[in-house]
Amino acid sequence: MKDCIFCKIVAKEIPNYTVYEDNHVLAFLDIHPRTKGHTIVIPKVHAETIFDFNEEIAKDLLPAVKKTAERIEHVLQPDGYNIGWNHGDIGGQEVPHLHIHIMPRWEGDGGSNMHGIVNHPGEVSVEDVAALFVL
Amino acid sequence: MKDCIFCKIVAKEIPNYTVYEDNHVLAFLDIHPRTKGHTIVIPKVHAETIFDFNEEIAKDLLPAVKKTAERIEHVLQPDGYNIGWNHGDIGGQEVPHLHIHIMPRWEGDGGSNMHGIVNHPGEVSVEDVAALFVL
Repeated sequence: MKDCIFCKIVAKEIPNYTVYEDNHVLAFLDIHPRTKGHTIVIPKVHAETIFDFNEEIAKDLLPAVKKTAERIEHVLQPDGYNIGWNHGDIGGQEVPHLHIHIMPRWEGDGGSNMHGIVNHPGEVSVEDVAALFVL
Repeated sequence: MKDCIFCKIVAKEIPNYTVYEDNHVLAFLDIHPRTKGHTIVIPKVHAETIFDFNEEIAKDLLPAVKKTAERIEHVLQPDGYNIGWNHGDIGGQEVPHLHIHIMPRWEGDGGSNMHGIVNHPGEVSVEDVAALFVL
């Protein structure tokens, strides 16, 4: 997509440090890493969020994340990972082309986990939320 | 797997508030939610991390995450999401059965994004890390 920085990386208009690549997915080092080896995995076809891509892209993406993490594991041997993505402005998504962060974790890095992102359960009980999911 | 709390949920030995289920994947409300609608998606087959499951499970999982998020979107209409998982003790993984958190985000919830988990890039440059990936 025109003006999408990640589409320009896929098109090789902007260089990248590739970690893994196949027909459908590109993984490259984040140039503003939060930890050593911080990598971004993107579908080559432009899609802003998971709601915008089809089942085929969904099937391709996680095997590629796995292969990318295996490559990082082999090369850097970190102590753990956080793997995930931000969805939408309020979710903190900064580039509107779905991208999965693989953040290698290192003992003593002072980090948290997915729970560190937000802690605002509100007043509604889990039982009341569950009731909304029962048709 | 014996003594795995998530395997017991899959086996219905422990009840859950189901959000989505298919042959390979179960998604249910976290009973200690960080935000309203916080949901956990697991493969039914026991696997501690993505390194422990095969390509078939990898292919099934993200389409199921998408369907689960679509269900949450339909029922709760949140303002965004963070979706991801912790891998290994140092990554903050608390149950040794891979589980993907879908955390709906709500305007004003005071949360961050994936970058909020850790900020410890260290002294090594991205160029030097990239050089390690070139065989």
